[in-house]
Amino acid sequence: MCRWIAYRGETIPLEQYVTAPAHSLVVQSVKALESTASTNGDGFGLGWYGEHPEPGLYREVRPAWSDENLRYLCRHIHSHLYFAHVRASTGTPVTRPNCHPFVCGRWMFMHNGLVGNWTRMRRQVESLIPDEYYGSRVGTTDSEAVFLAILGAGGDKDPVGATIKVLSTLTEMVSASGSREPLRFTAALANGRDLYAFRYAANDNANTLYYRESAGNVVVVSEPLDSEHAHWKPVPPGHMLTARESKPVSLAPFLDAQRVAAE
Amino acid sequence: MCRWIAYRGETIPLEQYVTAPAHSLVVQSVKALESTASTNGDGFGLGWYGEHPEPGLYREVRPAWSDENLRYLCRHIHSHLYFAHVRASTGTPVTRPNCHPFVCGRWMFMHNGLVGNWTRMRRQVESLIPDEYYGSRVGTTDSEAVFLAILGAGGDKDPVGATIKVLSTLTEMVSASGSREPLRFTAALANGRDLYAFRYAANDNANTLYYRESAGNVVVVSEPLDSEHAHWKPVPPGHMLTARESKPVSLAPFLDAQRVAAE
Amino acid sequence: MCRWIAYRGETIPLEQYVTAPAHSLVVQSVKALESTASTNGDGFGLGWYGEHPEPGLYREVRPAWSDENLRYLCRHIHSHLYFAHVRASTGTPVTRPNCHPFVCGRWMFMHNGLVGNWTRMRRQVESLIPDEYYGSRVGTTDSEAVFLAILGAGGDKDPVGATIKVLSTLTEMVSASGSREPLRFTAALANGRDLYAFRYAANDNANTLYYRESAGNVVVVSEPLDSEHAHWKPVPPGHMLTARESKPVSLAPFLDAQRVAAE
Amino acid sequence: MCRWIAYRGETIPLEQYVTAPAHSLVVQSVKALESTASTNGDGFGLGWYGEHPEPGLYREVRPAWSDENLRYLCRHIHSHLYFAHVRASTGTPVTRPNCHPFVCGRWMFMHNGLVGNWTRMRRQVESLIPDEYYGSRVGTTDSEAVFLAILGAGGDKDPVGATIKVLSTLTEMVSASGSREPLRFTAALANGRDLYAFRYAANDNANTLYYRESAGNVVVVSEPLDSEHAHWKPVPPGHMLTARESKPVSLAPFLDAQRVAAE
Repeated sequence: MCRWIAYRGETIPLEQYVTAPAHSLVVQSVKALESTASTNGDGFGLGWYGEHPEPGLYREVRPAWSDENLRYLCRHIHSHLYFAHVRASTGTPVTRPNCHPFVCGRWMFMHNGLVGNWTRMRRQVESLIPDEYYGSRVGTTDSEAVFLAILGAGGDKDPVGATIKVLSTLTEMVSASGSREPLRFTAALANGRDLYAFRYAANDNANTLYYRESAGNVVVVSEPLDSEHAHWKPVPPGHMLTARESKPVSLAPFLDAQRVAAE
Repeated sequence: MCRWIAYRGETIPLEQYVTAPAHSLVVQSVKALESTASTNGDGFGLGWYGEHPEPGLYREVRPAWSDENLRYLCRHIHSHLYFAHVRASTGTPVTRPNCHPFVCGRWMFMHNGLVGNWTRMRRQVESLIPDEYYGSRVGTTDSEAVFLAILGAGGDKDPVGATIKVLSTLTEMVSASGSREPLRFTAALANGRDLYAFRYAANDNANTLYYRESAGNVVVVSEPLDSEHAHWKPVPPGHMLTARESKPVSLAPFLDAQRVAAE
Repeated sequence: MCRWIAYRGETIPLEQYVTAPAHSLVVQSVKALESTASTNGDGFGLGWYGEHPEPGLYREVRPAWSDENLRYLCRHIHSHLYFAHVRASTGTPVTRPNCHPFVCGRWMFMHNGLVGNWTRMRRQVESLIPDEYYGSRVGTTDSEAVFLAILGAGGDKDPVGATIKVLSTLTEMVSASGSREPLRFTAALANGRDLYAFRYAANDNANTLYYRESAGNVVVVSEPLDSEHAHWKPVPPGHMLTARESKPVSLAPFLDAQRVAAE
Repeated sequence: MCRWIAYRGETIPLEQYVTAPAHSLVVQSVKALESTASTNGDGFGLGWYGEHPEPGLYREVRPAWSDENLRYLCRHIHSHLYFAHVRASTGTPVTRPNCHPFVCGRWMFMHNGLVGNWTRMRRQVESLIPDEYYGSRVGTTDSEAVFLAILGAGGDKDPVGATIKVLSTLTEMVSASGSREPLRFTAALANGRDLYAFRYAANDNANTLYYRESAGNVVVVSEPLDSEHAHWKPVPPGHMLTARESKPVSLAPFLDAQRVAAE
């Protein structure tokens, strides 16, 4: 189980949430509290939007806690929308292309969770990626495959609709087998302007997700960055958070409600 | 274009061919002579057979020339059958799982070449890997895909037949497109007892391959390891070399002749 | 606080103690039990003696738990005398030359502990290294400096005497300051035939050290490798263990007793 | 022999000189033209000033040519004063702390050259570093030692005077031995506002250094970044270039002239 944070708001240095807080993401890389994997030392990544449509990216296979580059970059890079992720591998190799976030054009994605038994599911999930996006698959994780499947399902035009469509298909896939394999999807998606965060699971409990909002800035996190728990509100299971440019943050049911509505 | 060596014979320390010769593989990583890529600094790998059926493996993303571990391992590890490879990436990321050699069970494989326009061909080639071998795909290279396709085509029982079958299919694939994309396959395959080396190309010239035999030991190389060129015999294009346990080294036509025979 | 194991006995594969046991050293890299640093993810190293007088060495900055090379090497390399170490840095950078074990000629050394406030002590300790050994200082750790100081004090001819001499000097150094800085030295030293292990501290409690002996083989460890605690005997604080070729393992007071005797 | 570039002027993205030009620094990492070491693949580094007094830093042991992080960072980071360096080690290990540039407080330094026989000279040169700066020595290179010696000689207040003082001492050191060992010092020094570049050698020819100035911006390079050689002026051997804030770029004799004047 990985740990991540996503920020959208006024332009700030990345360090404000990645390295500075008492229980910062880098501290969580050594010792996470609300996770089955207490150590998240299987690589990490930063992605941020600046003046270009496509984001910047820094990914590394070493643990975040001992990476001196990370500290310099978080201090010197500013952004209005950025992701940071510390990885606890669920089986795929520790390589840079397997570290989150993943980028494709102006889109960026990161994930905490898993898609069933990946060795068994992989081929099926990869078949959801259309040819035009398959060349962007540079790693071997379930997370990257889901991201490219979302883009392939029309994510660029309708990110929420495409995510619903792909997760709905994945839910069917993991449930089709008699073993009802777990699907856990706690993820963030952004395009440089808008931020979407999802907390969903099938055949299992959803991984934790919290957010904090103030003065139009929002930060979404796997677990609170400090002990002021009152400031951190949970995103309920089966819900998504939307933080669009110049719009208030909103929560809405994700997938479950839609599926119920459709039945 | 990568550089590699494969050895089969009496048990020797790996250093005898990897680091010690005047134009050793490590020297070739800095400056290859018979290659379009003069530097082979995109990672490297060692694979060797010892007392277990499956080989040992050491792969690293740093250049071979500055890896102090490599020097220690080559000095201290002995083997009767080993591979070493320095990589010049043709586009796929520099990660350990993308470094050669590749292993699967008791089989080991390495490659110098490319399969057409990989971004375009990848999906087709991956479809040649049966499900039972797809879980062994931990990287994203064309080379690993070809290896697993060979095993999937029955390589464990008939390595030469399976290699012919897969390369024949690949030749059709790269030739099917109007652009007649190049396929270059200069590769080594082993199972702990027997060594096979192939020099083949379609729509292009075959990459160089040489061998040297003495007292029942054979070493096969991308380019000679010393200036005594008279000792190094070329494997002709469209040919394969076989060095089976307790059998003399033999050369035979590969694919071209068979295809002619079949027409 | 690091974790390590040292083995001397009949030739065995390294995996027997490094990766195979329930609470193997690699498991301890994720979660040590008797340590203030629960994670030992700041690099690791293997050193082993084979047919050469000088040992082989494999050191890497990534955590041991995700290093696939480590697993292959431990399975394929055999030795009658080897060290393995997982590191939790006390401040010096995570680089290969700062990973243990350290080697110099036929000697090998590893350490769990610290020498006072290293930033302040460093220059004094480095001044203990004679010029002829200073060229062997490739890293910046206190541990490597202590090792080279021991060799410089005549360690090659009288390893125990030289270690006593250097640790005695270090004890004076850390105690000279009014702040009485801690010195913790739980270390192993070997020359290809004999193994010495030390458990000592000044101004602090000594780090844990255990050993297990059977049929002439001895393994010395920071903490037991399995739950059969009865098999693991502690090396008492202020003691050293000696395992010389063809001699029974023996324990003797280290430094404290000698100093008392000398007063 | 390493390759480097230093820039001072209006704020620009780092990519303008590091990755974009035809013969960019990254291209030089694969194939330098005016260097005895054609490949500079032993790590690299970026250092840049932004809104903080102290610079940002990104250093990595992998070759620059295959580092995808480098490309992202150069595209997304802007600076008015930055350094970039690709390394060809002259013997010290390939570790991040041994990669250039080096930083200490608000000062940044990088170097192409060597200080005599480093194994023999090291202790003498390190003795030039005062205690207050010795804690900043995190690597083992001659370059870092010279940098800290310059700061220790009062570089913060009088950078040129301190550099003259240290290089004068080093010249005496390398010349003292009968063997007259070479000293080559082609280096850049900056404090966030001012840039100094030096081209000097004793007992050898000075490494190449060029600069290009336009509209108040200056870029100083080991070798020209494009084939328009007319735009690139050499810094003459035994000279230094000064680019102070709001001042025109100036060249002045370095050391030789001063020493002559003093005699």
